[in-house]
Amino acid sequence: MSKPKGFEKPIGVRDYLPRATKRLRRIERSVLDCMSSWGYEPIKTPTIEYYDTVGIASSTSDRKLFKLLNNRGQTLVLRSDLTAPIARVASSLLRDEPLPLRLSYHANVFRAIEEEAGREAEFFQTGVELIGDRSPEADAEVVALAIASLQAAGVKTFKFALGHVGFLNGLFDEALPERSEDQQALKERLLHRDYVGFREHAEALGLNREQQEELEGILRLRGGLEVCEQAGALTQNPLALESLDHLRRVWEALADYGVSEHVLIDLTMIGDFSYYTGMVFEGYAAELGFPVCSGGRYDNLLRQFGRDEPATGFALKTSRILDGVKDPSPEEDLPVLVLYDAERRAEALAEAGRLRSAGAAAVTRLAIAGEALNDASLEAESGRYSRVLRYSTVGSDHTEPAARD
Amino acid sequence: MSKPKGFEKPIGVRDYLPRATKRLRRIERSVLDCMSSWGYEPIKTPTIEYYDTVGIASSTSDRKLFKLLNNRGQTLVLRSDLTAPIARVASSLLRDEPLPLRLSYHANVFRAIEEEAGREAEFFQTGVELIGDRSPEADAEVVALAIASLQAAGVKTFKFALGHVGFLNGLFDEALPERSEDQQALKERLLHRDYVGFREHAEALGLNREQQEELEGILRLRGGLEVCEQAGALTQNPLALESLDHLRRVWEALADYGVSEHVLIDLTMIGDFSYYTGMVFEGYAAELGFPVCSGGRYDNLLRQFGRDEPATGFALKTSRILDGVKDPSPEEDLPVLVLYDAERRAEALAEAGRLRSAGAAAVTRLAIAGEALNDASLEAESGRYSRVLRYSTVGSDHTEPAARD
Repeated sequence: MSKPKGFEKPIGVRDYLPRATKRLRRIERSVLDCMSSWGYEPIKTPTIEYYDTVGIASSTSDRKLFKLLNNRGQTLVLRSDLTAPIARVASSLLRDEPLPLRLSYHANVFRAIEEEAGREAEFFQTGVELIGDRSPEADAEVVALAIASLQAAGVKTFKFALGHVGFLNGLFDEALPERSEDQQALKERLLHRDYVGFREHAEALGLNREQQEELEGILRLRGGLEVCEQAGALTQNPLALESLDHLRRVWEALADYGVSEHVLIDLTMIGDFSYYTGMVFEGYAAELGFPVCSGGRYDNLLRQFGRDEPATGFALKTSRILDGVKDPSPEEDLPVLVLYDAERRAEALAEAGRLRSAGAAAVTRLAIAGEALNDASLEAESGRYSRVLRYSTVGSDHTEPAARD
Repeated sequence: MSKPKGFEKPIGVRDYLPRATKRLRRIERSVLDCMSSWGYEPIKTPTIEYYDTVGIASSTSDRKLFKLLNNRGQTLVLRSDLTAPIARVASSLLRDEPLPLRLSYHANVFRAIEEEAGREAEFFQTGVELIGDRSPEADAEVVALAIASLQAAGVKTFKFALGHVGFLNGLFDEALPERSEDQQALKERLLHRDYVGFREHAEALGLNREQQEELEGILRLRGGLEVCEQAGALTQNPLALESLDHLRRVWEALADYGVSEHVLIDLTMIGDFSYYTGMVFEGYAAELGFPVCSGGRYDNLLRQFGRDEPATGFALKTSRILDGVKDPSPEEDLPVLVLYDAERRAEALAEAGRLRSAGAAAVTRLAIAGEALNDASLEAESGRYSRVLRYSTVGSDHTEPAARD
């Protein structure tokens, strides 16, 4: 075990320099403002939670939880998402608030990572939870808000895929009754989009032709609203049919929101099936090539915190969006440099104060002897300032643009 | 060891509900905007750092560092301040940037706490670092910016106390040469403002009358600029005299900033003397009764990261300010409730979209059967909405203010 060098930071974490930080803050603000305009109020929860409560309730797999011990020997975790902490708050501090609750957040979350994976151990998410409403309207609202939020973040071209865990659960129960291991194996393959593996496993199950076709038919269930029709023909299972009806009603509401052009139905999409209980969705940005948003309904989570209420929500993968989205206005407002001789400092500082009050940025500096006449040192600063204001005892005041590259 | 209950969170951390979160975000934004107008650019660093680099370099005492192990057996820390991480960044990613660097941050920081202490294990700081300028002008700039930042945060009445570690180091070296343990003991008492203990220790040192008076004279060194004069009469030590001259020049610059009414000189104030190397300062808010800002010069820190440059800066204790400062505008913009029957949903959603685009907040909801006529359920929501817009198939549209308590 070698000691880290002075300038090293742990694997999987990053520094955000001013340019990236300003863009991250702009995205945070635009998206939270958008969520606020839909009636979602921001909350903040601690970075550290108990493993036995929020850690176990979170959708993050145990080996990816970032764990630590406190001095009483209790296991703590660095939060891996905001959904479980918000469920805790909704069940405690906000227990007496009237439903539905509409809450938003922007926060960093953590993953314990394998060193070689090149993944992020800390990254930002911005999202909402809508608690206490089990209707298709509520699911449609969070999908429509996810679309509006991506737009607010500056993502131009994207698609959302919409699925339903209940449909798959019902269909698998019908095709493979009492065979939960095989169900699990097939779901794992769907989760990893391993369609070849899904077919191979389905063929090895020793099913009759009809059951076989029912299972393999799942893989074709991607497209528009007609997919719900096709899916309905595959199954008689009540849960599956009810789920399809729910999904159809979500779709119809999304049409009324005027956003169905951005949405596909994809019944092969399952999300984290130990966690989600109904509709699930993911957003993909054309310019980025990876998911930038995921969400869904999780009606069993709040019960674990003692308040049995349905809930639905999503999280934008804000760090990824930051990496992928072009900055619409890359030009920056450079500060004015106010340069002064010692004798005129009060004047110069007052002028800097006026500039700041007027919304500009100003940097002040005592001139090095002779600097007002010889601009060699200013040359080195070209590009850092929009202009230079001089308060000099030799010669008159003058304003001039700084040299810029 | 008992298992935590479902709704419990670890000791020393807190949830910020919407009202507090909105205030925190307002303070964050105002203060960072203020810092930006002074030419300070925001950066973000990771929550997790190596103990052997940033952990050791930080000013937080070892037992208060929040430590964890990674899977290679290396010790990590949750950052305890931003000064050490920013020194790391200034010495690595920003190594080739021209000096001075002006950087700002708003971030959560962590302390391992004794359970009984009632202290916070996680809290927010907002601050700046000015790197690469050892002049009194630079120190005055960060003090003046600290004052402007407190004002931006909404703190009305406050005082700043200004000291100098170099003055005390020089004076102690002169009065107690080669007696570093006694120097340390006296400094500890100053750090904890234990003036009785300081006197007792000084009297037990077996010094002559003149040395004794020199030491006890320190305790009177609080007031305006005249304090530098009085302090100069106590010592001939070159470091002490040079430090006083530096402090006098900081004071004169603060007078030119027009802020010296907020500033006192307090040469008994020492700050963390293993860390600070020059001027130190603290800000106290009259309405709060505890320090809301601390800062100073730390010219030896960057060297530990391989870039030997002077630096000065401060951090606002933002969580404390949040708790203490009254909200100037507690009234909130409540959202409009857009209530609709299924048949008129598209119309209602379009109207909600228009309201949001116009800067208002709108919540949409499918009306329960008969709700348009019988407002019992709306009564329960009184105070949540500014008004209700109805898109109903029975009767005509109308807008009316919701009942408010």
